[in-house]
Amino acid sequence: MTAAHTTIADPYPSRLSAPADNFPRTHPAVWGKEKSGPFTPIAVQRYGNNGFHIEEGMLTPAQVQQCWSEVERLQNNIELDKMGAIVRECHSGSVRSMFAVHEVSPLIDQLIRTPRILNRARQILGSEVYIHQSRINCMPGFSGSGFYWHSDFETWHSEDGMPLPRALSMSIALTDNYPFNGGLMLMPGSHKTYIPCVGETPKDNYKKSLQRQQIGVPDEETITKLAYEFGVEQFTGPAGSALFFDSNTMHGSANNITPFPRANIFVVFNSVENALREPYAGTAPRPQYLGNRDATPLTPVHDSPFD
Amino acid sequence: MTAAHTTIADPYPSRLSAPADNFPRTHPAVWGKEKSGPFTPIAVQRYGNNGFHIEEGMLTPAQVQQCWSEVERLQNNIELDKMGAIVRECHSGSVRSMFAVHEVSPLIDQLIRTPRILNRARQILGSEVYIHQSRINCMPGFSGSGFYWHSDFETWHSEDGMPLPRALSMSIALTDNYPFNGGLMLMPGSHKTYIPCVGETPKDNYKKSLQRQQIGVPDEETITKLAYEFGVEQFTGPAGSALFFDSNTMHGSANNITPFPRANIFVVFNSVENALREPYAGTAPRPQYLGNRDATPLTPVHDSPFD
Repeated sequence: MTAAHTTIADPYPSRLSAPADNFPRTHPAVWGKEKSGPFTPIAVQRYGNNGFHIEEGMLTPAQVQQCWSEVERLQNNIELDKMGAIVRECHSGSVRSMFAVHEVSPLIDQLIRTPRILNRARQILGSEVYIHQSRINCMPGFSGSGFYWHSDFETWHSEDGMPLPRALSMSIALTDNYPFNGGLMLMPGSHKTYIPCVGETPKDNYKKSLQRQQIGVPDEETITKLAYEFGVEQFTGPAGSALFFDSNTMHGSANNITPFPRANIFVVFNSVENALREPYAGTAPRPQYLGNRDATPLTPVHDSPFD
Repeated sequence: MTAAHTTIADPYPSRLSAPADNFPRTHPAVWGKEKSGPFTPIAVQRYGNNGFHIEEGMLTPAQVQQCWSEVERLQNNIELDKMGAIVRECHSGSVRSMFAVHEVSPLIDQLIRTPRILNRARQILGSEVYIHQSRINCMPGFSGSGFYWHSDFETWHSEDGMPLPRALSMSIALTDNYPFNGGLMLMPGSHKTYIPCVGETPKDNYKKSLQRQQIGVPDEETITKLAYEFGVEQFTGPAGSALFFDSNTMHGSANNITPFPRANIFVVFNSVENALREPYAGTAPRPQYLGNRDATPLTPVHDSPFD
């Protein structure tokens, strides 16, 4: 006697052959029930309503400086380069993103596991957490090109096999973010809508999409509708500011023609109860440095430079 | 007996064969001595110090709407198209700029000669004025590409033969200008420095430079120095706001990936005492729609929709 075969429908389908309607997301953004934690109740509420929350002064100027020196050092890291974890700008060849930075940098690892940061992720996601992805984004002056509008969860679900939107990103600015040097733009409230995208996922799509994403982006009509419904806000603030945002928040960035470069540390925390499965797009999983398949919970570190 | 041949050195040399140092501009930004006029004394002082000044509410919402309808109508103007006065985006082919709009549109002509606008130009330039150039800039949503950093005077001097920086631009926003949809960025105080540029002017340079300027732009080192010295400000504000800025103010704009389009009416007023000569770059003058060679003073109109 064989077991009955049960088909469970994917609650977040994407990469479809034909356009499908947007629909309300069924899962919450704030999974934690605990009232106490490093985030104030108002911050948690704002995060839940807007899909993001900004905290200035997450790092002191001295801590920013330490991280900045680390970024400069990592740009020449041979191990990262061998992994293919360094992505360069199409035209200029300058470094655009470096991935898996917590694996090669004890400093970044300590930063991520500092209780005031780690416990914020735990507070929102309502469980132990692990790192799905870590990276440093560099947007040079003059020639920095932006990222088109997208939801991260759409890609992580389709190409990494992340089951539910129970993940959050933290971006810490290592440079001052002005409104005019290519800072992140977000649509507040957009995280509550799920947008299935059209188009089959090419093999090794990430090799192109990290320079310029073409698959897994909503069409212009949908983005227009969302922008007029929700508006657009920017992540601005002095170096050391931290932006926490939900995995399904619609975001993007313009280019940077000013001489002021922009750099940030970017960490994706995922709930250990939301560990990766096979990619929902039916493709092979992306490399470990893009979608970490080891869901071992992060442990806090004390007595680091970030205490 | 022949007259002595006197060589008068160009006080604002550019398009040089080798780099030359920047130097302080010798002429004022505010040429008018009259204390009275539509600009308040504080506005005049600010204009003189910063090289620009923003006045919100220059047009009422109803006036903006009239102009907007005119813009839509002009996009199909056969006369402008024949003149070559419609410039399209490199990639999408959508309209980027339309020139000489006051010549084909009685409404735009009335707008420019409305006393509260015309008298502002007279007040700053200290004389009767005429229109050096008029245009409408359209930056569509999603794909609008920006303008790199430049001083307008550098081009008008080199390619049109404008002797001195005794001209000003007025940009009236027909759409809301956000910090994130490709609005103009200006470096306050930069108008007091003149920056000679390197590079010979190609024949018919304007045919390329209106899509993407490559000659007559300062090098990155110079822009970096200026940006750190002066900072960067943006022209933001609701539709109907007007920006007045000096012909030598360093400015540029980023691209626009938001769905919010941007459009403005752009008018360059030149002093009748600063009429065009032969272009200082030694090239043939640009077409009339880019650099008007008829310095007949503008006369005010009353009883227009802009009163």
